[in-house]
Amino acid sequence: MELNNQLGNNIRWTTAEKKAARRAFDRALDSHLEEIIEEAKGRMAKVNDPSDLWELEAYLTASRKVVNRIYQFRESRLFTVFSNLMSDGRLKEEDLVGLHPDKIERIKRSAEAFRSVSEFQ
Amino acid sequence: MELNNQLGNNIRWTTAEKKAARRAFDRALDSHLEEIIEEAKGRMAKVNDPSDLWELEAYLTASRKVVNRIYQFRESRLFTVFSNLMSDGRLKEEDLVGLHPDKIERIKRSAEAFRSVSEFQ
Repeated sequence: MELNNQLGNNIRWTTAEKKAARRAFDRALDSHLEEIIEEAKGRMAKVNDPSDLWELEAYLTASRKVVNRIYQFRESRLFTVFSNLMSDGRLKEEDLVGLHPDKIERIKRSAEAFRSVSEFQ
Repeated sequence: MELNNQLGNNIRWTTAEKKAARRAFDRALDSHLEEIIEEAKGRMAKVNDPSDLWELEAYLTASRKVVNRIYQFRESRLFTVFSNLMSDGRLKEEDLVGLHPDKIERIKRSAEAFRSVSEFQ
């Protein structure tokens, strides 16, 4: 609960903001999925023996799980989701046009914090 | 145990027969794996959206499990394995050159029996 407060996950979003958020979310998801498809096609082109194929299978399974874990569009999770996406370089400030500047600031701050944490991991 | 007796899974194999069996087994396995790789490459070429990709992932997982289940080179299982492969069209009589004719006959009979059973399924 304390962490949710810090991340702002209990702050309300207006209808217009939710629409803008949905657009940013879908764009990040689509581009992530395109990357995975491109990577998978590249790996498949290099498949020569069964072990390459099972490695590709493992890559697909892991990618599907990552996508399912990251991309959850729930109002109560949006700050966390966007901060993570920004800290991974999958979302830029300009993608968030339409959100209240306070929200954008909060997302940027958390993204920065996530980045510093992940540097120590 | 009764079924094992019927299938001949408790009959001994000479060293020369085991060598011939290994050759037939490896050939069937290699050709099965090649088929899977070819099918997977064909499917990947047609991947347009993420759902195609996750279907391909499911195909790979299922194929890996089938291969692991079918191809177990243990003397006590060879009759069952070869009969199944023959009933699936993955092994021909001429692939079994080097086995005692009684063994080949037994494998053919069981393959025929498996085929009739699977027709009713």
